[in-house]
Amino acid sequence: MHARNYRLPALVAVVLFAVSATGDPGSVYEPDGRMKFPKDYREWIFLSSGLDMSYREMPGMGDHSMFDNVFVEPAAYRVFLRTGTWPEETRFALETRGAKGKGSINQRGKFQSGEPMGVEVHVKDAKRFAGGWAFFGFQGTESAPQIPTGAECYACHQKNGAVDTTFVQFYPTLLGIAKQKGTLRSAYPQ
Amino acid sequence: MHARNYRLPALVAVVLFAVSATGDPGSVYEPDGRMKFPKDYREWIFLSSGLDMSYREMPGMGDHSMFDNVFVEPAAYRVFLRTGTWPEETRFALETRGAKGKGSINQRGKFQSGEPMGVEVHVKDAKRFAGGWAFFGFQGTESAPQIPTGAECYACHQKNGAVDTTFVQFYPTLLGIAKQKGTLRSAYPQ
Repeated sequence: MHARNYRLPALVAVVLFAVSATGDPGSVYEPDGRMKFPKDYREWIFLSSGLDMSYREMPGMGDHSMFDNVFVEPAAYRVFLRTGTWPEETRFALETRGAKGKGSINQRGKFQSGEPMGVEVHVKDAKRFAGGWAFFGFQGTESAPQIPTGAECYACHQKNGAVDTTFVQFYPTLLGIAKQKGTLRSAYPQ
Repeated sequence: MHARNYRLPALVAVVLFAVSATGDPGSVYEPDGRMKFPKDYREWIFLSSGLDMSYREMPGMGDHSMFDNVFVEPAAYRVFLRTGTWPEETRFALETRGAKGKGSINQRGKFQSGEPMGVEVHVKDAKRFAGGWAFFGFQGTESAPQIPTGAECYACHQKNGAVDTTFVQFYPTLLGIAKQKGTLRSAYPQ
């Protein structure tokens, strides 16, 4: 009985990897290169959330307060646990959602409320993108064109990402793994 | 080719359900009734996070600032998407983690940092618990005894949970589903 219980999850893992490995680019991109909205990103692995994070000193959002939630695809997450690096075709999703103070029985602090204010995908694909990584910004669930490589996000991730242009310094469950595997950039901003 | 791509995820779903349905209580509980620490909860489905939420008017945490992250088991989540209700054996995990302001390139707002400060599990199991649900509080990864049913969490969830003693009013991706399926309590605090 025990042997059987252990074998089933292994089978699941094998099937999941098979699905991932035969991934059809048509499920991710339109023929014209726009990325399809990743409908299932809320079922990816959660990495962390922040509230009103900003990389600049000056306030810029007025009265708006929002959470960001970061997810990564399960197959890529499992590779990172094993190696401390991201495989080709890894996708991250960054979702922003409104922060609410008083509501229901909550009296203080902030909770997430309402529909997403936006979803951005960061994708690794050296065959497809010069520089190896690309960003796509979605409004609603329409397919989206690549954000031009001159945009600030590219230079900032390149300069400050702790592992391979990604902000592993902000993902508490991954930072220790990168340290252990020796995959942190030597001079990332701590 | 398309037919094949669609069939594989279906197979995965069937296998996952099979694993879930044959779930051995020995994987969740010790023989003495303590719950084992759910080692894989960070791979469950993320429902939401909050910062310094409190159901009381008065401040009580001094200088501590922390995020809470809520996860639910994937099989239970899929049942909720379909029905707006939680099946028997559903487990939620509530994790608290320190909130940090300035750090790395972050200048404002808060991000999550460090090890979990605690993990609490809310579990549905009418065969095992009078009242149908129970709470378990973990310090570290040791197995934990049930929190006594006189504790405030039981009465508060019972009185204020929007769906079956759970705080669906704070889970933005589930609230609409519960509305649509008609499973919200008629008088939950909005």
